Amino acid sequence: MVILGIDPGLSITGWGVIEAISRDKISFISYGCIKTVSHSSLIQRLQIINTELQHIIYKYSPKAVAIEELFFFKAAKSISAIGQARGAIILTVSLNKISLFEYNPKIVKIALTGYGASDKYQIQHMVKFFLKLKKIPKPDDAADALAIAICHINTIKWS
Amino acid sequence: MVILGIDPGLSITGWGVIEAISRDKISFISYGCIKTVSHSSLIQRLQIINTELQHIIYKYSPKAVAIEELFFFKAAKSISAIGQARGAIILTVSLNKISLFEYNPKIVKIALTGYGASDKYQIQHMVKFFLKLKKIPKPDDAADALAIAICHINTIKWS
Repeated sequence: MVILGIDPGLSITGWGVIEAISRDKISFISYGCIKTVSHSSLIQRLQIINTELQHIIYKYSPKAVAIEELFFFKAAKSISAIGQARGAIILTVSLNKISLFEYNPKIVKIALTGYGASDKYQIQHMVKFFLKLKKIPKPDDAADALAIAICHINTIKWS
Repeated sequence: MVILGIDPGLSITGWGVIEAISRDKISFISYGCIKTVSHSSLIQRLQIINTELQHIIYKYSPKAVAIEELFFFKAAKSISAIGQARGAIILTVSLNKISLFEYNPKIVKIALTGYGASDKYQIQHMVKFFLKLKKIPKPDDAADALAIAICHINTIKWS
């Protein structure tokens, strides 16, 4: 089962693709990020996110998409930018008829480290460990996207 | 020239279609709202907004879409909901290759009443007046959408 994890943002959207044949057998496929620049119009930026995400979906055919829930301790302007990118991303997933799962950041931390208040470095270290990578994926947004995908594998029921 | 005005929201998105052959010759075509319920998932809600908006675009073939800018005095949760709906709406407009124009709420007020601090009732009254309607369009979201469409007609250059 191929899972696409997404850490949404208007300037940078991290993505990570993993494959799992069971909860314990997870393998890394790819990761990266979609970048847009602030001097482009909002419509252009959402269009770039849509086009690149469409390309990723076409290339890896994920069975499910896992995305972090929007949290509210950020500034209003930041919530607005993430929210709009997130709306475009979720619509793209929906138009491709792929199941979407949302995870609270705390749940992602618990799934990866067993501890809801773990820091960014602990999460990134566990991403590297679970996916048997030689180094921590960069940028942070891509590592976060892989963490969300791993969280999905650890959360769903395996029959 | 057919213009579609949109007042975006996750629970209710107002829309209004008008036609203009010059700045002074504006006629009313239609208005309404797209509603989604909170017990549906986010993906379902954005899908409904996309499907209904797609239907409106197909039916009226607008040359341009005018949408209100996102403003920041609302609560974070509200900005998040509007932002996500707005992202899905803008992507839908973009996928239909229609030009998008964003207007600040103050600019909409000035365009309709000549005064940037006018209240909701003054705006609705001017919408009724400009479009020669018998009564004020309801709900408020639809009246706001028509106001944004009229603002666009008043703002663009007419050669």
